[in-house]
Amino acid sequence: MPSEPHNKKVVLVIGAGDSTGGAIARRFAREGYIACMTRRNAEKLQPLVDAIRAEGFEAHGFGSDARKEDEVAELVETIERDIGPIEAFVFNIGANVPCSILDETARKYFKIWEMACFSGFLTSQAVARRMVARGRGTLLFTGATAGLRGAAGFAAFAGAKHALRALAQSMARELGPKNIHVAHVVVDGAIDTDFIRDNFPERYALKDQDGILDPEHIAENYWYLHSQPRDAWTFELDLRPWIERW
Amino acid sequence: MPSEPHNKKVVLVIGAGDSTGGAIARRFAREGYIACMTRRNAEKLQPLVDAIRAEGFEAHGFGSDARKEDEVAELVETIERDIGPIEAFVFNIGANVPCSILDETARKYFKIWEMACFSGFLTSQAVARRMVARGRGTLLFTGATAGLRGAAGFAAFAGAKHALRALAQSMARELGPKNIHVAHVVVDGAIDTDFIRDNFPERYALKDQDGILDPEHIAENYWYLHSQPRDAWTFELDLRPWIERW
Amino acid sequence: MPSEPHNKKVVLVIGAGDSTGGAIARRFAREGYIACMTRRNAEKLQPLVDAIRAEGFEAHGFGSDARKEDEVAELVETIERDIGPIEAFVFNIGANVPCSILDETARKYFKIWEMACFSGFLTSQAVARRMVARGRGTLLFTGATAGLRGAAGFAAFAGAKHALRALAQSMARELGPKNIHVAHVVVDGAIDTDFIRDNFPERYALKDQDGILDPEHIAENYWYLHSQPRDAWTFELDLRPWIERW
Amino acid sequence: MPSEPHNKKVVLVIGAGDSTGGAIARRFAREGYIACMTRRNAEKLQPLVDAIRAEGFEAHGFGSDARKEDEVAELVETIERDIGPIEAFVFNIGANVPCSILDETARKYFKIWEMACFSGFLTSQAVARRMVARGRGTLLFTGATAGLRGAAGFAAFAGAKHALRALAQSMARELGPKNIHVAHVVVDGAIDTDFIRDNFPERYALKDQDGILDPEHIAENYWYLHSQPRDAWTFELDLRPWIERW
Repeated sequence: MPSEPHNKKVVLVIGAGDSTGGAIARRFAREGYIACMTRRNAEKLQPLVDAIRAEGFEAHGFGSDARKEDEVAELVETIERDIGPIEAFVFNIGANVPCSILDETARKYFKIWEMACFSGFLTSQAVARRMVARGRGTLLFTGATAGLRGAAGFAAFAGAKHALRALAQSMARELGPKNIHVAHVVVDGAIDTDFIRDNFPERYALKDQDGILDPEHIAENYWYLHSQPRDAWTFELDLRPWIERW
Repeated sequence: MPSEPHNKKVVLVIGAGDSTGGAIARRFAREGYIACMTRRNAEKLQPLVDAIRAEGFEAHGFGSDARKEDEVAELVETIERDIGPIEAFVFNIGANVPCSILDETARKYFKIWEMACFSGFLTSQAVARRMVARGRGTLLFTGATAGLRGAAGFAAFAGAKHALRALAQSMARELGPKNIHVAHVVVDGAIDTDFIRDNFPERYALKDQDGILDPEHIAENYWYLHSQPRDAWTFELDLRPWIERW
Repeated sequence: MPSEPHNKKVVLVIGAGDSTGGAIARRFAREGYIACMTRRNAEKLQPLVDAIRAEGFEAHGFGSDARKEDEVAELVETIERDIGPIEAFVFNIGANVPCSILDETARKYFKIWEMACFSGFLTSQAVARRMVARGRGTLLFTGATAGLRGAAGFAAFAGAKHALRALAQSMARELGPKNIHVAHVVVDGAIDTDFIRDNFPERYALKDQDGILDPEHIAENYWYLHSQPRDAWTFELDLRPWIERW
Repeated sequence: MPSEPHNKKVVLVIGAGDSTGGAIARRFAREGYIACMTRRNAEKLQPLVDAIRAEGFEAHGFGSDARKEDEVAELVETIERDIGPIEAFVFNIGANVPCSILDETARKYFKIWEMACFSGFLTSQAVARRMVARGRGTLLFTGATAGLRGAAGFAAFAGAKHALRALAQSMARELGPKNIHVAHVVVDGAIDTDFIRDNFPERYALKDQDGILDPEHIAENYWYLHSQPRDAWTFELDLRPWIERW
């Protein structure tokens, strides 16, 4: 007997490699959503899949390169056919590698855009087509302050994040009236991750006074946005620690 | 025996004359907050006070002119002394009266600023001083699209709303590191009120398809903002119906 | 024989008390405009009037309080009747007095708005009515970075500057199609004034490397904006020294 | 005898295929700059080169694909070695091809970014390195309203223009203190081109009342920006016809 996809709801998190993506997937799983997560290397996803399953929820990890149109098409087709309709979509791939504009290589400038923006276009579009056909769904994008403002040393990352925000805003304006909720979350501050702990210990020490963002708390906002009734949808909200300078 | 203010928490809503302010007060009351509400005419507040009490919660209405420094000082002193500490504050006075810039009177230009901005300064400052002394609290401001963009016929209202947003943003930057959460909610669309029903019937008819904002749903966002843990505070979010053009 | 106002063109600078207003008046005078300038104390304007006359141009100083509707009406009536049509208008009153939001007095919060915004409304409206009747004219507003962003210690000034920008933008959208060019100049940096020299000597020392704004150079932009053909009008431009951090 | 590049000044216009790029090149030529212009097909540039030469000025056309790093490197090397130092640089390639986000192809989404943003990165960086080594220069970017705001049907174009603006802003913040003036011109409205005349005749008819932008007038602003003294540099200005709705 095949599973019954008709009663099922999927959240698809693109880029669950860091703690934020994983926390979002888990947050939706606790509400009854089947957590589908991707990163390029499926094996690295397994601990996260196992952790969600250990809580008693359904989770699936997919090794999928979001920059490849055919892999994206196959990913979405597989999930929709075998698991259930994607009701919520989260694009969560970042690529913040600062560099002077004078030293930036063309290859890296392209790679940052490809990872942080182009893959957002490919994946959100593929999912949006399914959602529009069903007449419902939520598309959520992880943004950054660099999406609102350029800065010395951030030309590549700011360009990708600006373009991703333009994508989200254009989608919100076009797809809102088709009952698709599109939102963009501006994360402004360091997140409690291994990367910050290992590379910015002084920053990480702010954790004791709630000075860095807890992935679980970020995830709560994604769930909140998805839960908003459609007479009062948010397109954009920012998140930052209380002591952050801005 | 006097009441025990030490265990009590007050939400103070300035401008509970419309449905939004009332809905916010009620939302906080349901979470255990004592709802204190103001408008110029206390009698007009009584039905709202009665309604919240009928649900089994504590509520108080105050006739208070938020444009008068001494009335504001007395209001805050009275609440803090007799009822409890103001843990959450909501400024919700609007004053949208469009007019060509060529015809706008100096009196009305001033009045709109005085109602929609100056009273916000007076009241939020008076409360902020108490909150800073306690080392905690939330200040919430109701904004509008006119706070982000001027438009033909909206010079006075846009001016007041821009200034209110500047106030909120300046307070957020100064008081955030003092553990005061300041946030600004951009309401973009018609709200389900008697005013819209009576004056814009075509617009009001959109209610059947969730095309106007439900005050209860707006209120949910104020509660949500107040509830955010301080490692991930939002300064600004927007709210609009799914079919709204923007 | 009375003068012939029909061939004459007036530039009216509200707030020519600082070096920027004077430089703008002089710049327009050199192009054949009669320079009319105001500040509250007419006597203090006399050196500026004399200096422009010494260059061989026509100049008039007016003691006029831009916050008083009747004084503004009389000022505009006098100029239009006795001197010539106001073809260009510049609002240049600032009021940057930083203060913690906790310590700001209601009186000062009001005064800053009254000086930096309300007087801008009164004067630009009075002139706009004349311009619209003639079907041409330019309205120029001196803005600041605080008009775009609030900051700790700047709630009052940011509020006034935000509101002034909202006024300018609303006027631009309403009056542009009536052939009135409205523009807003965002000055971001210290200006070469006695005030900066006397109070911020370290900052003033940057003058040697062009690190503070020369009023003559600021003035050039006002003339440039006024000169733009109407198929390509600018609403907003920013000005800052090359070494300014932003 | 070889030419004397030491006393020469070059303006390099990337994307002189439309009327705006040509007008900018001509405007600088009239000020004594050697006009170097590129588009993919050098032959199509010849009429423009001839026209500038017919006015008595020096002009050169280059067939060069701005999306190819090696072609860009060769272009800049050739000009700097054989013609003169590039004192002013203009990036003027657009790619506005609206499409629903649901129908946009991955190929076109990429191409629009590659043309309107990536080529801007490659060319401005190559020139910036030379300018920084000399300690002077101006980098000018042609922007659009889509660089500030996403819209239904404009996800690809808005993304590219947002990213280009982020590039310009990041460069301005990093290279300003190195004496490189970076500016971004937001063109908001139809330009007087063959394309508009042939495809949007109703829009083109607004030309009689100055309702579309004259390329010569746009060009004037580029020259103006290049001429600004460094104590008062503009990063951004907008340009629109007086009757444009915005």
